[in-house]
Amino acid sequence: MIKVGIVGGTGYTGVELLRLLAQHPQVALHAITSRKEDGMPVAEMFPSLRGRVSLSFIEPAKAPLTGCDVVFFATPHGVAMAQAPELLAAGVRVIDIAADFRLKDTAEFERWYKMPHRCPDILAESVYGLPEVNREAIRKARVVGMPGCYPTSVQLGLMPVLAAAKSTGTPLIEPTGIIADCKSGVSGAGRKAEVHTLLAEASDNFKAYGVSGHRHWPEIRQGLSAIAGQAVNLVFTPHLVPMIRGIHSTLYARLTLAGRATDLQALYETCFAGEPFVDVMPAGSTPDTRSVRASNIARIAVHRPPESDLLMVLVVEDNLVKGASGQAVQVMNLMLGLPEEMGLMQIPVLP
Amino acid sequence: MIKVGIVGGTGYTGVELLRLLAQHPQVALHAITSRKEDGMPVAEMFPSLRGRVSLSFIEPAKAPLTGCDVVFFATPHGVAMAQAPELLAAGVRVIDIAADFRLKDTAEFERWYKMPHRCPDILAESVYGLPEVNREAIRKARVVGMPGCYPTSVQLGLMPVLAAAKSTGTPLIEPTGIIADCKSGVSGAGRKAEVHTLLAEASDNFKAYGVSGHRHWPEIRQGLSAIAGQAVNLVFTPHLVPMIRGIHSTLYARLTLAGRATDLQALYETCFAGEPFVDVMPAGSTPDTRSVRASNIARIAVHRPPESDLLMVLVVEDNLVKGASGQAVQVMNLMLGLPEEMGLMQIPVLP
Amino acid sequence: MIKVGIVGGTGYTGVELLRLLAQHPQVALHAITSRKEDGMPVAEMFPSLRGRVSLSFIEPAKAPLTGCDVVFFATPHGVAMAQAPELLAAGVRVIDIAADFRLKDTAEFERWYKMPHRCPDILAESVYGLPEVNREAIRKARVVGMPGCYPTSVQLGLMPVLAAAKSTGTPLIEPTGIIADCKSGVSGAGRKAEVHTLLAEASDNFKAYGVSGHRHWPEIRQGLSAIAGQAVNLVFTPHLVPMIRGIHSTLYARLTLAGRATDLQALYETCFAGEPFVDVMPAGSTPDTRSVRASNIARIAVHRPPESDLLMVLVVEDNLVKGASGQAVQVMNLMLGLPEEMGLMQIPVLP
Amino acid sequence: MIKVGIVGGTGYTGVELLRLLAQHPQVALHAITSRKEDGMPVAEMFPSLRGRVSLSFIEPAKAPLTGCDVVFFATPHGVAMAQAPELLAAGVRVIDIAADFRLKDTAEFERWYKMPHRCPDILAESVYGLPEVNREAIRKARVVGMPGCYPTSVQLGLMPVLAAAKSTGTPLIEPTGIIADCKSGVSGAGRKAEVHTLLAEASDNFKAYGVSGHRHWPEIRQGLSAIAGQAVNLVFTPHLVPMIRGIHSTLYARLTLAGRATDLQALYETCFAGEPFVDVMPAGSTPDTRSVRASNIARIAVHRPPESDLLMVLVVEDNLVKGASGQAVQVMNLMLGLPEEMGLMQIPVLP
Repeated sequence: MIKVGIVGGTGYTGVELLRLLAQHPQVALHAITSRKEDGMPVAEMFPSLRGRVSLSFIEPAKAPLTGCDVVFFATPHGVAMAQAPELLAAGVRVIDIAADFRLKDTAEFERWYKMPHRCPDILAESVYGLPEVNREAIRKARVVGMPGCYPTSVQLGLMPVLAAAKSTGTPLIEPTGIIADCKSGVSGAGRKAEVHTLLAEASDNFKAYGVSGHRHWPEIRQGLSAIAGQAVNLVFTPHLVPMIRGIHSTLYARLTLAGRATDLQALYETCFAGEPFVDVMPAGSTPDTRSVRASNIARIAVHRPPESDLLMVLVVEDNLVKGASGQAVQVMNLMLGLPEEMGLMQIPVLP
Repeated sequence: MIKVGIVGGTGYTGVELLRLLAQHPQVALHAITSRKEDGMPVAEMFPSLRGRVSLSFIEPAKAPLTGCDVVFFATPHGVAMAQAPELLAAGVRVIDIAADFRLKDTAEFERWYKMPHRCPDILAESVYGLPEVNREAIRKARVVGMPGCYPTSVQLGLMPVLAAAKSTGTPLIEPTGIIADCKSGVSGAGRKAEVHTLLAEASDNFKAYGVSGHRHWPEIRQGLSAIAGQAVNLVFTPHLVPMIRGIHSTLYARLTLAGRATDLQALYETCFAGEPFVDVMPAGSTPDTRSVRASNIARIAVHRPPESDLLMVLVVEDNLVKGASGQAVQVMNLMLGLPEEMGLMQIPVLP
Repeated sequence: MIKVGIVGGTGYTGVELLRLLAQHPQVALHAITSRKEDGMPVAEMFPSLRGRVSLSFIEPAKAPLTGCDVVFFATPHGVAMAQAPELLAAGVRVIDIAADFRLKDTAEFERWYKMPHRCPDILAESVYGLPEVNREAIRKARVVGMPGCYPTSVQLGLMPVLAAAKSTGTPLIEPTGIIADCKSGVSGAGRKAEVHTLLAEASDNFKAYGVSGHRHWPEIRQGLSAIAGQAVNLVFTPHLVPMIRGIHSTLYARLTLAGRATDLQALYETCFAGEPFVDVMPAGSTPDTRSVRASNIARIAVHRPPESDLLMVLVVEDNLVKGASGQAVQVMNLMLGLPEEMGLMQIPVLP
Repeated sequence: MIKVGIVGGTGYTGVELLRLLAQHPQVALHAITSRKEDGMPVAEMFPSLRGRVSLSFIEPAKAPLTGCDVVFFATPHGVAMAQAPELLAAGVRVIDIAADFRLKDTAEFERWYKMPHRCPDILAESVYGLPEVNREAIRKARVVGMPGCYPTSVQLGLMPVLAAAKSTGTPLIEPTGIIADCKSGVSGAGRKAEVHTLLAEASDNFKAYGVSGHRHWPEIRQGLSAIAGQAVNLVFTPHLVPMIRGIHSTLYARLTLAGRATDLQALYETCFAGEPFVDVMPAGSTPDTRSVRASNIARIAVHRPPESDLLMVLVVEDNLVKGASGQAVQVMNLMLGLPEEMGLMQIPVLP
C-alpha cells in the first residue's frame, strides 16, 4: 500500500482528494494536516467521510510527512514551495494542487502571485501535471505542479489543433485572437468565507469576473504555447455559474485555410483515442457539465459555427476532479507506476 | 456474473440503477427496456454512461427478460404486476422499485393507485424490501416490493422506538399523533415533463404538497404498524425543496413515561449497530442531505427538544439511492447471496 | 417628506429597506451609516440602486441622525439600545429591525443574547411591531422592536385560534405540544462571510439547525402567550432551504373539542378580513414562497390533516420583507400616520 | 385609462406583463385570453396576483379584444399574424412579444419558423420594438414586433460602436467575426412542460445549446446590420444557466485602428446618455444579472482585454423584463404618448 499525506485538507480540493483516495485500492492515508483543526477527526468536519476516513487533522509540524511515499498539497499557494525541499530530500514525491509549480518563469510567478519563488531549482525540475500532454515526463517526475481547473479545460480543448500544427508544421488555427469564454461553478472559489460566494449572493445570478487579468491566464498561455511550439495568445474571460461543480469552456479560434480543410472531428477523435479520461463527443453535441459530475472525465465537442471561419470547441469537466484532485490522483498513479485509471472510474452522478 | 434486466430505464430510478449496476463487480447488464426509445443506445440518452454502458434500449416485447437472473422494474406502477407472473414462472427474481408490491391490502392499493391489483397471490408472497426490518425474508424472496423514498426515511427514523416497544411490551412513544414533516428534492417527482417541477417554477421556491393524502402515507402507516406490532397513525406532510437529490424527514412523536426515561441515543446506536447503511450521528447533530448525496447511507440524529415531551428524529437519505435504486441493489445482493454492501460503497459526493 | 435615517445599511435588511424606501412616495433618505464603508456611495456597493439612491455611507459618529424623523436599525443586536436614548431625546422615532426590543424580559434577553440590556426603561416603553396584533399601540409608539422573521410567520399562523380563545374563553388548541417546523431561505442568515452559507455548502442541500435553542424560540413563545392570554409552549425547528428568500412555516397544534367543532377556514378569513398584508388562501391550498417573493404579503392556508385531531397551518412570507424590512416600513407608516400600505404594494415577482 | 388586452397570458411573458400592467397607473386590464383555461381566474393560476388582478382567462373567440386600445401577444409565434389584421382594422394597436414581426424578410421568417407569413403587408408596416434604436418610429407605429431577449442584449451592447461608424463613416470594429457568447436563465425557455428544463435536469448544470442555428441569430444579424448600415455577421452561442431570470451576453469584436484609438467608455456613455433604461457601468465593472432582476434596466460594461485588439462588452438584462414584457410596456408607453418610464421604475430585487 502507498502511504499518502495531504497538506491542507480542509478545503474543497482536500475533501475531494479524501473522497477519491479513501476509495483507491492501493492507498493508505497516512497523515493529513491542518493548521487550525489540529486533533479534529476528519469525519467530524466532513460527515460524508464517516466510517471511511478515520484520520484526524494534525498540525503540520507534528505530521509524519517524510514517512509518506507521496504528499499532496491542497493548500493556498506558497505552502508547497516552502515544504517541498525537505520532502524531496526524504525521497517523498510531491504533487502540488496549488500554483507553486505551474508557471515556469519565476518572474511571471512573482507578478501574478505577489511573492518570490522560494525554490527555483525545484521549479525547474518540476513537471506540469497534464497527463494528456506530459505523460512520460510525469512518470519520471519527483515533483509535479498540477494545472489549474480552467487551464486543464482550455488546453485539452485546443491541444489537437495546436499539436497537429507542431508535428506537421502547418498551423490549423491563428495563434492570436483565441477566446476562452469560461464558466465555472462556485466551488472553484474554494471553501473560504467570502461574501461574494454566499448562496444569497451567487445563486440565481451570473457574472463575469477577473476580466482584467486572472492568474490562470498566463498559465493557459504557457501551456498552449508549449503544445503549439510557438507563442500563442488568447483572451480569457471567466464567469461564475450558480452551481457547485463544473466548468464549461467555450473556445473560439480562427481557422487557417489548412484548418478549414481539415476533418476536425476526426482529428480530435484520433488525438484522444486511447485517452482514458477524455471523451470526444459525436459531431453536433453540446455536452453538459453534469455529464461529468464527480468524475475524472472531460468531454469535448468540436463545432464549426455556420457562416464563419471559426473553430468552436466546447469542453466540460468537474473542476474538483479532472480540474484538480482527480487529475492529481491520475498523476500519482503515473508517478508510482500504477494503472492510470486506478481509483478513478466512478461514473458521473446524474441527475 | 449475474444477468440483470431493467424494465423502464429512462427515468431517474432507471439511470441511477444503471450507474450502480455498471459499477457492480458481479453484475452483467443483460437487457433494458423502453417502450418509446427502442434501439437508442442508453449512453446516447445519458451521456454520463458513455463508455460504461453499451446496451441499447429495447422494446419490452423483444427483451430477453426471462433469461435474466433478476429483473428490476423502474416503471410507473401497474407494470410490474403485469409482468411478474411470467418472470417468476421462468425462475427470474423480481424487484419492483414502483408501488405494485408495497401495500399488502389490495383494497388499500386500489384506493390509492386507482387500479385493481392483477396478482394478489404474488402480492401475498412478496416481501417489503426494507433490509433493516426484513433482511431474512428478503434473502428468501422471489419478489420484493421496494419501499418508497419517504417511507424508507420515516420507518428507519422510528424503527428503534417502535421495535423496542414490540420486544419489551412497553411503548416508548404514543402510537398516534406522530408527525412526519418531510422534505424532498425534485428528482423525487421523476423525469416527467411537468410544469410544476420546471427549474423556473421550483427553484428559489419552497412549498408543501399532497397534504390531503399522499400515496406514501398508507405505506408508512403499514410499515410503522408492522414494526410496532400495533396500529400506528401519523400525519405526513411532504414538501418540495429546490434541490435535485435528498430527503430530510423531521419526525415528531410524544414520548411515554418509559420513553422519557430511556437513553434514546444508546437505543438508536444499539438498534443500528452493524447496519452497513444506517449511521446514527453523535448526540446533538443536524445531518444535512449532502452528507449522503449519491450514496446508499441514511444518517439519523435523535433529539429531545427543550421543555417538551417530544422525541424528534432527523433522517437524511438520497431519495434515488437509499430511497430507491441503491436500496434495490442492496436487496438484490441479499436475494442472490452476495455481500450486502457489494457495489454500494461509494462515498457521498460533497460538496 | 419624512426624513429617514438607517443605521447599518450594508446587510440584507439594509439593502431591502433601501429598495423599499427609495420607492416610497413620502420618504426622503437622509443618512445611512456604516462603520466600515464611510464615504462609499451606496449604489457602488449595491449596483441595483444605481440612479435611485444617491447617498453615501457615513460613519455613525458623523451621521445627522438626530435630524431625522425616524431612524431604522438594520444592525446586529446591541446597537439600537446603545443609540436609542439619544435619538428619542431628540424626538426621533426608532424602529429596530434587530433584537434589542423584542424580548420584554431583560433576563430572557440576557440569556439569549449574552449581553446586559442597556435601557430597560425604553424596553418597557417599546412596542412589539406586529401590526396585526399591536396596530393601535404601534401608532402611538416612540420606539418599536420589529419581530423576527420566523416569529412573524408563526404568530400570524396561530393568531386566529389563540385570539379566539382569549376573547371567548374557550381554547381551540392545546397550549402545549405545538410544533413550528420552519424553513427559511439563506438570506435569513444575513450578508456575513461564513462557510456554512456559501453556495457550494448550502446549495443542493437541506438541513435543520439551531434545534437545541434558537433565539427566535423565546420570542415566539412570548408572542403566542401574549396573543392567547396564557402561557403557550412550542417546539421550534428551523431548517435551511437552498433558496435566497422566503420562509415556509408548517405549524401543528392539537385541536380541542371546541376547535374540532369550529369552522377554521371561516375563523381565519374573519380574523384577517381587512388586513392589507395577510392573505388567507382558499381551503386546500398549499402556498409557495415565491407567491410572496419581494412583497410584504403573508399567505396562510388552514388544514385538518386526515384521520387526526391536529390543526395544520401553512404560512409563507418573504423573510426580508414581511419578515423584516417591509414590515418595518409598514410600522413606520403607522407611527407617522401615513396609509399603512404606502410604498408596500409591489406585486410579488413570479417566476 | 388605457384598455389593454393580452392574448396568451399563461406563460412567463404573460404573467410578467400582468405584474407590470397591474401596477401601471394608466392601464386597465380589459381581457386576457387562454385557449385552455377559459373561465379560470388569473389569480388562481398565479397566486402572486391575488387581490391585484381580478380578470379571468377567456377563450380567444369570446374575448372583447377589438374594444381594446392595445393588445399584447404573449403567445407562440404564428398567433399574432393571424389576429393582427382584424385588430388593426378595428383601430387597435398591436404589440407582439413573439416572433411574427421580428424578421423583415418573409423568406428568412419561413426558413426559421417553418410556416408561411400570413400578412406580409403588415410585416412591412411593422416597427422593430427596440426603443433605443427606433424610438421615433415606435411612437407612430400601429404594430410593433418586440425583439427577442438575446437580440435586445446583443444589439444594445454593440449599438454604440456600430452606430458611430454609420454616422462618421469610419468603422470601429470589424463587421465579421463578432462573437456573442450569451447565457440565459431557464425562464427564457418558457413555461412549457419539457424534460430538459426540469429542475432536476437544468439545476447544478451548464451547457450550450442551439449552436448550429438559433432563431435569434438571423434577428441579431438583421438588427446589427440595420444599426451599422452595412452587413454584419456574427457567431451566436447561447448557453443555459441554472437560474430563473437573467441574460448575460459576453460580446467580442475586433477593433479597427480607429476603434483602438477611440475612448470607448466615453463613446458608450455618450451614446446612452438620457436613455432611461440603459446604464453604462463605470470602467472595469463586471455587472451581474441580479443587479437588474425584475427591472427594465440593461447594464453594460465596456472592456479592452489585455494584450489583444478586441473589444469586449458585457451586457446584463432581465430576459422577462427588458428582454420581453417590460420592453413591451415601454413600447406601449411610446405608442400611446405616455411617459416612457411609466410603470417601469421598479428597483431591481437584490438579493
